[in-house]
Parts: sequence; structure tokens; C-alpha cells
Amino acid sequence: MKVTFASDNTAGASESVFQAMMDAAQGDAMPYGNDEVTAEVTEMLSALFECDLDVFMVSTGTAANVLSLGAMTPSWGSVLCHSESHILNDECSAPEFYTGGARLIGIDGQDAKIDPIKLKALTYHKIGDVHSCQPSAVSLSQVTEVGSVYSLEELRAITDIAKEAGLPVHMDGARFANALVALGCTPAEMTWKAGIDILSFGATKNGTMAAEAIVVFNKSLSKDLAFRRKRGGHLHSKMRLLSSQMKAYLTDDLWRKNAEQANSMMALLQDGLATIPGVKINTPAQANMVFCTFPKGMTEHLTEQDFTFYGGRWGEGVVRLVTSFRTPKEGVEAFIHSAKAFVEKT
Amino acid sequence: MKVTFASDNTAGASESVFQAMMDAAQGDAMPYGNDEVTAEVTEMLSALFECDLDVFMVSTGTAANVLSLGAMTPSWGSVLCHSESHILNDECSAPEFYTGGARLIGIDGQDAKIDPIKLKALTYHKIGDVHSCQPSAVSLSQVTEVGSVYSLEELRAITDIAKEAGLPVHMDGARFANALVALGCTPAEMTWKAGIDILSFGATKNGTMAAEAIVVFNKSLSKDLAFRRKRGGHLHSKMRLLSSQMKAYLTDDLWRKNAEQANSMMALLQDGLATIPGVKINTPAQANMVFCTFPKGMTEHLTEQDFTFYGGRWGEGVVRLVTSFRTPKEGVEAFIHSAKAFVEKT
Amino acid sequence: MKVTFASDNTAGASESVFQAMMDAAQGDAMPYGNDEVTAEVTEMLSALFECDLDVFMVSTGTAANVLSLGAMTPSWGSVLCHSESHILNDECSAPEFYTGGARLIGIDGQDAKIDPIKLKALTYHKIGDVHSCQPSAVSLSQVTEVGSVYSLEELRAITDIAKEAGLPVHMDGARFANALVALGCTPAEMTWKAGIDILSFGATKNGTMAAEAIVVFNKSLSKDLAFRRKRGGHLHSKMRLLSSQMKAYLTDDLWRKNAEQANSMMALLQDGLATIPGVKINTPAQANMVFCTFPKGMTEHLTEQDFTFYGGRWGEGVVRLVTSFRTPKEGVEAFIHSAKAFVEKT
Amino acid sequence: MKVTFASDNTAGASESVFQAMMDAAQGDAMPYGNDEVTAEVTEMLSALFECDLDVFMVSTGTAANVLSLGAMTPSWGSVLCHSESHILNDECSAPEFYTGGARLIGIDGQDAKIDPIKLKALTYHKIGDVHSCQPSAVSLSQVTEVGSVYSLEELRAITDIAKEAGLPVHMDGARFANALVALGCTPAEMTWKAGIDILSFGATKNGTMAAEAIVVFNKSLSKDLAFRRKRGGHLHSKMRLLSSQMKAYLTDDLWRKNAEQANSMMALLQDGLATIPGVKINTPAQANMVFCTFPKGMTEHLTEQDFTFYGGRWGEGVVRLVTSFRTPKEGVEAFIHSAKAFVEKT
Repeated sequence: MKVTFASDNTAGASESVFQAMMDAAQGDAMPYGNDEVTAEVTEMLSALFECDLDVFMVSTGTAANVLSLGAMTPSWGSVLCHSESHILNDECSAPEFYTGGARLIGIDGQDAKIDPIKLKALTYHKIGDVHSCQPSAVSLSQVTEVGSVYSLEELRAITDIAKEAGLPVHMDGARFANALVALGCTPAEMTWKAGIDILSFGATKNGTMAAEAIVVFNKSLSKDLAFRRKRGGHLHSKMRLLSSQMKAYLTDDLWRKNAEQANSMMALLQDGLATIPGVKINTPAQANMVFCTFPKGMTEHLTEQDFTFYGGRWGEGVVRLVTSFRTPKEGVEAFIHSAKAFVEKT
Repeated sequence: MKVTFASDNTAGASESVFQAMMDAAQGDAMPYGNDEVTAEVTEMLSALFECDLDVFMVSTGTAANVLSLGAMTPSWGSVLCHSESHILNDECSAPEFYTGGARLIGIDGQDAKIDPIKLKALTYHKIGDVHSCQPSAVSLSQVTEVGSVYSLEELRAITDIAKEAGLPVHMDGARFANALVALGCTPAEMTWKAGIDILSFGATKNGTMAAEAIVVFNKSLSKDLAFRRKRGGHLHSKMRLLSSQMKAYLTDDLWRKNAEQANSMMALLQDGLATIPGVKINTPAQANMVFCTFPKGMTEHLTEQDFTFYGGRWGEGVVRLVTSFRTPKEGVEAFIHSAKAFVEKT
Repeated sequence: MKVTFASDNTAGASESVFQAMMDAAQGDAMPYGNDEVTAEVTEMLSALFECDLDVFMVSTGTAANVLSLGAMTPSWGSVLCHSESHILNDECSAPEFYTGGARLIGIDGQDAKIDPIKLKALTYHKIGDVHSCQPSAVSLSQVTEVGSVYSLEELRAITDIAKEAGLPVHMDGARFANALVALGCTPAEMTWKAGIDILSFGATKNGTMAAEAIVVFNKSLSKDLAFRRKRGGHLHSKMRLLSSQMKAYLTDDLWRKNAEQANSMMALLQDGLATIPGVKINTPAQANMVFCTFPKGMTEHLTEQDFTFYGGRWGEGVVRLVTSFRTPKEGVEAFIHSAKAFVEKT
Repeated sequence: MKVTFASDNTAGASESVFQAMMDAAQGDAMPYGNDEVTAEVTEMLSALFECDLDVFMVSTGTAANVLSLGAMTPSWGSVLCHSESHILNDECSAPEFYTGGARLIGIDGQDAKIDPIKLKALTYHKIGDVHSCQPSAVSLSQVTEVGSVYSLEELRAITDIAKEAGLPVHMDGARFANALVALGCTPAEMTWKAGIDILSFGATKNGTMAAEAIVVFNKSLSKDLAFRRKRGGHLHSKMRLLSSQMKAYLTDDLWRKNAEQANSMMALLQDGLATIPGVKINTPAQANMVFCTFPKGMTEHLTEQDFTFYGGRWGEGVVRLVTSFRTPKEGVEAFIHSAKAFVEKT
């Protein structure tokens, strides 16, 4: 049995997502988002988030993130984010491209969460000094890069500092549903009620093929996003391809069910790992991702057993394990079983 | 019966395209193009074009065009193109964005084809003068914006001038298959054998949902395209979504069959229109699009009959009619019938 | 005697400008514009223009123009200007660079003045259509590229249209003083009272070495100019070098005296040319520049006589003659004399 | 007596520089660098550096730096530099602007010199990974930001690593002459013989008003610099203003004499400081700048005595003292005297 914990972007898509795409492909529809499904999606997101909002569908998470940052930051500004964040480390220099050359300022903090004290200091750093980039926006990731989740209080601590300094806040929600399920709060509570201005509402990692929504709560920021999306080449002619995926994702709580599956598999995995001598859990998983340290040889052993996951990029023995909406319970059990067997043998 | 001649991007996708997407969505696959289907697509395109080439899959035609231009043009350069071209008129300033601010220079020419004499003059305009943008690339559209098709000789006339001036040539092939079917030549003959360096190989308008390939024949230009695609937010994590569409499109000559259907429906439509007194065909259609001038009142009449198409943007009475792989023969006949009825009545 | 009519940027600088630079170079002063001379210049310009305003000193006219455009135009916008304007034809793609890739839209019009009717049509072109650049600013040149000068009524016709469409207006005043002297109005009347939001106040062509001021009347636009100037590399550390030049230029009406000298030499030149058979004045000069058509052989003859001026770039026989604050009366007379002699001889 | 140690950009210019500017301003000259003085400057620099080279005159150090970086770095690249470097901390985001959004990667290292081991690791970081900016150039400052000077061996250590990785090297020589005098080597030894590809040859801080030269040793990099300079608005029409300054600076070893004066005044200052109890020299000065830590109250005391210098930006009591070609010996002595008096009093 071949099981992957490499990433939640290796799985395909949920059945209903495909059905919806196929249905949407029948007949003709106006291009560029002037179709009925796209309108429906905006309504559904508005209902989900319990507020008026603007939606811009795109097909990649990078596009969602960097279009958002472009709308929030002048070219002479800077975006304050965690030093391990995806926008800083995994999107080449897409943020610089879309902001016209603004700078990302990495801030440290435990568990890949921005340290509020350090953030506060930076929001007042060299303000008005033309020789220095000016703090212009804050971006945080929920779930974070190491699998932790900001509590509502922690979110508030960040956004309060941002608001006081007059900076808009972007949330990279590539794993939004996983975080929401972990916190057990409403989408509204984790976003605009917590001070978020723009959300990259990720769906691709949690059941769609390629569909992400830029959700704008602070509509003063959405003025030019339509033009920016077109300029970036991200306005799909057959927009219903994207919108139908999102519609299926929002229908019958698919997003929630998928995230619950991924998170519960991670919980099972983590519980199992905790029972294995020599395995250290680096950051306790709150959603569907965990970083841990394996004893010498275990990574090779598990790889030989056809389990796939990422290692070798971080410290000695450190690996990253990710579960998805498709991770099977038997796969997790087999993984734990195999890991245990290795330890007992050595 | 509701029939649209508005655009070839209003139709959905061919059945086999969907089946392929659904199949691709089963199981896990490595992300970002490191999957098997993506590798297969490169091989298929290589076979189709009878040469070694590089392929970069993206999801919109604008992305294909502007990433190509970005790879060909320094920021202080200019792109010579037809004054009615899509890149100049219909992509906001995406070309400027992706080239770092290069300039598009529109050149006139009959039937939306670049006039070679004017092109030649411009390739030598202010060369070496730092006060002026320097000609850096040529971009032409095949099929053109008005539905005409460059003959192989006409292509050569353009590319010879470009080559002599040391400029690479881009082909916007949003309707590549329709042009190819019209000319009855091989893909190789219409591209690299005719001097094309990079092709935007369109598929979305002819049967896929959202899948375009940047096909690089002059591989010295492909060096940085991988980085540019990521920076533009156009690298799909679940790349097989795109690649599977393209694979289906290339399988069993789907691309050709779809284009033949579209073109033959246009021929039928055009033949019909030619028999109607008062209807003037502005540019004879060679592929799947025609511009013609309707007598007063005919546009309104047909619109009331539930036919949709674009008008009112160009001269008095001028309309654009486009057929697609899904245009039904009965739809064309009904349109001609209705048009005739209008003329006879008045 | 060697005399040039090639350009007003071939002359050096007025004596008092140099004296002021030398004086400013004594002793120490705070860098980056925090010196006394720079503060004085702002006060002097405020007095000259009879209003509160912001000043950003730079050392080239291109910098003044493109920083201004950058402050007025979003990256997805367009700048409406005359098709013969300097920003469109003589600054490489500096405007695209500083606006993040906005587009310049050239508008025709008699005597290099924007045609108000064509301007009006373009301000409403494809508004709200994401596929098209959005009109975002208007830029006009006073003196124009062919040496004509907008009357106050003509200026108003342009700015009224811009204001109605909500577009700010930039004036490229590379030859501002020459235009002002030609019209005989106040600086205020020719700028903010006529609807100008930002002025490139040129001084280099009229007596300084390298000193231009961006004068912002509409202070809502100056918010980020300080950052943009630094980002462009245009913030001088020893700013007093620039400011002292400008101070001398504004002292004792040097700017006016220099412009009067240049304009009166042009009037003399033009009057002389008018008396020569076979010489055609293409656009009557109102300031210090004229385009005219010489009979066959005259250009060569005058060039041999050591007169320098530009020709060979425009139509058959068309030449451009420019006078400056340093053009000597004897030089003009010698030119006319030599031209006459040529005609009489042939 | 009022003496400043704030910066070497607070002094004016050397007499001969002004004389040269004034001389250059007489008569007419072709614009945009097509004058005789500009040609002479290239010859003089070629002689000084004992090699064929290209020269691009600009008026600010930021322009020299960022135009150089733009010529060396693709938009998806990164520039490796010291974490305290001027390009990273004091030029807003001008480097991002001129490189089209490349990223600066700060590297730590003693005395503001890049640590070769850390540099080496970064030159191989994520090579070929499209998700990551690609190392594309190295930039180092000679003199560094804290007043230290790379030895020739230290320079070689950096450039060898860069060359091995295929990266060009830029030297920010805002205080080039001061470093050269400190090392006592030839200009060639400190630049191209040590592996430097492009040099920002600073003159403004050492005796000119506003004149810097981009000196290109690796001429394969100079291809597009002429266009980039124009696009940045840095091509002066009356170029001789810049060139004449540089000519005077290079004549009769003015550059060397000025640097010797600045450096010897710093030596005197440092020797004096070393005798004062409680004063700590943080980095021993090798050129004309020193960072030291003053005992409590000394900064205030000296400020009251009309000495100016920067403090309060770094650690508790840390100040920066800079000497220039104009720093008088009596000023240094007075400063030491006053500092001593303060210590004795307390």
C-alpha cells in the first residue's frame, strides 16, 4: 500500500467537484465571470461569512496571495509577515512582482506565528524616512507553515497592532478550512470579526482541482482588483470552470467534511507518533500538518516501505507529514505500524 | 432554439476532456508539473510539431501570451504587433506588466495582418537611440482578430523581416487549430518551419476548459520561463488538471476534429450570408470568425430571435460572428433562415 | 562664427546660476533636502505661483515628468497625451517604468496640441472594461513639441474635459518660461488656475545646468512622491546643488529674462525666414522653437557654414530651429544672411 | 567653532570641481554625453584602472548602485549582500524597482563584511527551484557601512565564491577612494583584478557635488545600461555638468588627496578617542568612518558644544563619526579636547 504524507496538493479532487465542473461545462455561458455560477458563488460566500464582500476567483494560491498584497501595498511599502511564511519562501518573488517591488519583511515568532512584540516594533520602524520601505500591510498564514493555528486571541493581537498602525491585514488561508475546523469557530469570527481585510480562501488543498477565492471584506481595497487580476493573466474566460468547483466545495459543507477528515487523520497520526520512542513532535499539530524529528534511519525505512513525505530540507531527521481529505485511516495505521516496527527492530 | 455566435469561449468543453480530468483526479500525483501526464503532454506536442521543444502549461491565453513576450523582450524594448491585435487591445496592460514596461507598437495592415513594408520600416526605427524603445520582438495572431489567416508565404514575409533584424517572433495561436485546418498544412510548417520562436498554443476556445500551452521552439528563450511562470502565479500545484485537458485535446485528433467542425459551420454560415441581399461580408472568413455588415434592423431582429453575437462596437451595422466546436448545423441554418426572413419582410 | 540652433540644451548655464552653486558649496549643510536653500526655493515657488504647493527637486526633465506620471496613474491606467509628445517619443519607456507599466495613449491634434474632441472620446473609452487600460491622467506640453503654445482657453478646454472625467492633469513645462513669456500671463494663470495638478517646472533648457522642479498644486497627489523620488534614485544628497541653481533661476527674474531673450531671438529668426523665398514655416513659432521646410540644398549649405540644427528626421527638407537664452543676435542675423545668400545664388 | 562629523555628504565640493563645472558651462556642447569632456572622463578612468571599460555617469550613488544591480540581475533573481549594506537599508526599495522586483538577501558577517562561508551556502541555496528566488549577483561595499575595509584577500574570498557559482560581483564604492588609500593598492588591484564586474565609483562624498560613475569592467554587462539609464531618468542633457566634476576629481590626484585628508583626520580622531577613558571603539576605523560607544552623557555634552554627528539609532551610547576631505585638524582636536574635558569632569 502506497500512502503519501508529502502534501495536501498531491490528492485529486472530490467527486462532487468534478460533477459540478462537468455540469457547468454543458451549454453556453457568458465568459469572464458574467455567468450564473460565479454570481452564485459570491452569494454563497457572503452567506458563509455573514457579510457583504467581494470575490475574485483565481486558479492558484500564489495568485490569490500576491494579487491581495498588490491591492494593499504601494511599491515603496513593505509587507510584514512571518519569516517562515509561504509568501516569503515559496513563491519565488511573485509578491515583489505584483506589488511593483515592495519588500517582504520576515518576523520571527514561535510556531511560525508572528511575534506581536516584534511586529509592533516594526510597524513604527523608520516611519516617514524616505530611505526606508514603509510598513504597509501585514500578512499571516492560518494554518501556519508548521501546522499550528492562531487562536482568535492571537489573531486579534496581530490585527490590533496592525489597525493601530493603519495597516490592512491579509490572511493566507491556503488551509483555511483546516484551521476553522481546528478552532471550531465561525468563518466570520476567524476573519473580518478578527480584523482581516482580505482573505486568500484556499480550496485546492482541500478538495478542488484549482480554485481559490480572493475574499475582500474591506471593500475599499477591492477597487482595482478586477484590473489587477486581468493584468496578471488570471481572469479565466470560462470562469465557470473555477466557480463550479467552488460552488461544489461550498455545497453540503464539503469544505468542512474534507477538513475534518484531514484533521482527524492528523490527530490519529500524531497520537500514534507520540507512542513511538525516539520520535519527537516539534510543533504539536492543530490541523493537518506536523513537523517531527525521526530517529536515525527511520526516514529511509519508511520511504522504502513506499510511504512518501518531505525530509532532508530542515534539521537532522526533521520531516513534515501532511494529511488530506483523502488520507485513508488504514494508511495512517500502516505508517504508525511500520514506524513502530522500525524502532523495535533497532 | 437559442444559439450563440458571440464567441468560441462561451462553449463548455468536449466530453473526453472532462473524462480525462476526472481520470487524472484519481489517486495522488506529484505537484507542480512533476506528474506523468505533464511529461506525456510534452512528448505529444513534440511529436505533433516534429521537433524538440519546451512546454509550459498555463490556464489562460493572456498568461500564455504575456509570459512569452516577457521572455522575448527587455524592459526597454518594444513588441511590434498589429494595431488590432488582442495583446494590444484586449489584455489591459498585461504585456507591459510581464515585460517590465516594454511598449507595444501597433502596425496597420489589411485584414488584421501586419503589413510587411511597415514592419520593415519599424524594425530599423531609431535603433541604438537611447531616447527610444528598441524593437525587440514581433507578435502576430493566427487566426487574426478579424478571422483571416496568414498564408505560409505571408508568415514567412513577416518572420524573414524579423529574423533579418534579429527579432524573435511570437505567434498568438488562440485559434491555432482553426488556422491550421484552414491552411491544411502541418503544425511544423505553420510554426518553427515558418520562423516562429514561441507559440501560444490555444486550446480553451476549441474544446478544453482552461488549458493553454506555451510552446517554445527556440529553446534559448525558455531559460527563465519556468521562473516567470511561478512569479506570475501561473504554476498550478495540481498541474495534471491542465495537462490532462491538453492530453485529451491532443488525443485522437480531437483538436483537429473540433476545429474542422467550427470552420465548416463558419463556411456554412458564410455561404448562407452571401445569399442574403444587403449583407456585406467585410473580411472573408477563413477559419471560424467573420465580420460582416448587416442592414438596418437585422441585428435587433436576430437578437429578438434569441441569437446572440457582438455588435455595436465597430462601425454602423458591423457584427462579429464566431462558430465553435459545439455550434450545431441547425443553429446555423436557423440563423440564415431568420436573417433571410427579415430581409424578405423589409 | 559657429552658431547652433540644435537645441536649448546645448548652452551652458547663466553666470548667476554658477555663482549660486559655488556659494552653496561653501560650508556644510544637511543632506537630502534638509538644507536652507531648498526650503527657500519652496517659498520662492510658492510666491511665484501664488499658492501653497509641494516641491520636489530633481536633476532631469525626464525624472520630473515620469515621477509626476507615476504619482497620478495606477499600473492598469493610461496617460492621454499628444501623439508627438516628448513623454511618448523621447524618453524611451521611462513613463512605463515609473508607472509600473501604464500605457501612453497618443492623441492627434493640430500644432502638437491635443484635440479636445478626440480627448473627450478617449476619456470615456471602455471605462470599467477590465480588458482595457483605464484612462487615468492627461499630460500636455507647454511649449509643445513643435513650438506652439496653448492659449489659456485651449488649456481650459483640455483640463475641463479631464476634470469632468475625474482625471488629473500634468503639464510638461520643459519650456515653461518660454510659454509664459509668450502668453504674457501669470504662472498661476497658466497652471493651477487653468486646472493643472502637477507641473514639471523646467529650468535646465533656460539657464540652469541640471535643475528641474516637480511642482504639485493638487497636494493630494504628493503623498508618495518623496518615496518615489528616492526609489528612482533621484534624491540628491547634496541637494543644495540643485536648489541653489533653482534659487538663482528664480532670483531677479532670471527665468523671465532668459526666456525673453530666447523668444525674441526666435521672433527675429522667424521674421527673417519669412522674407526668404522658398522657405516655408510649418508651424508659426510662439516661443523659442520653429519647424520649417527649407528648399533643396539649403540645409547642406548652412551646415557647411557652421550652423548646426536638426534635420533629416522629419519630412523632406524639414528642419527644427531652437533658440536659447544664449543665442546671440549676430548669430541669428548671420544665419538669415547666409540663408538668403543661398537662395539668391540658386 | 562648529564642526560636523555627521557624514561626508554634508561638505560642499572642492574648488577645482567648481572651476571645472564653470568652465564646462561656457559655450555650447552636444547634449546627452556626446560632448568632449565626457569622452575625456572615460579615457581618464580607463587609464586610472589600467583597462578597457565602459562608463555611465549619473548624479546619485543610489542611481549608480541600482542601475548596476539591474544590469546584473533578472527579475526572478536575488542579490546577495551584507545585512547592514546601504542597498538593503538606505535606498528604500530602489533595488527592487530597478531590478523589476528581484530580492536582496542580507548575509551577516563581522565588521559589516560578508561572511564567505555563509555566502557560499547561499550561492547554492535552492538552485533551480522555481519556488525560490535564484542567486544572481553579489554586491559588497568598500568601505563598508561601519568603516572597515576589505583586504585584497578578503575581496578575493568573496569574488572567488561568486565566480565559482557564476555570479557577477558589484562593488558599492561610495567611499572608493578612502578604501583605496587605506589599502595602498592600485585601483585595478581593488577592482577587476580582484574579480569585480561593475563598480559604483563614488565621488560625491569625496569632493564633487553630484557625480558618480558606473564603471563596467565586464563589458558583457554594459549592453543595456545606456537604455536603463535613460529609462530611469538619469541621462543628463547637459552631461558635461557631471563629467566636468569627474574630470576635476580625476585631475592632479584630487580624489587621492581628498581621501588622504579624510582618512588622516579619522586616524587622528581615533587616536585621540583611544586615549579617553570610557570611550569604546566598536570597529577600528580603516578609512574615514568609525563607530564607537560613548559613556553616558558624552553625546549630549558634545552636541551642546556644537559638534554634530549621528547617534541614537543603534545601541545605547553608540555613535558614528565621519570625516571628510574638508574636516579641519583643529576641529578634530577641539572634539577630542571637549570629549576629554567631559570625562575628566565626571
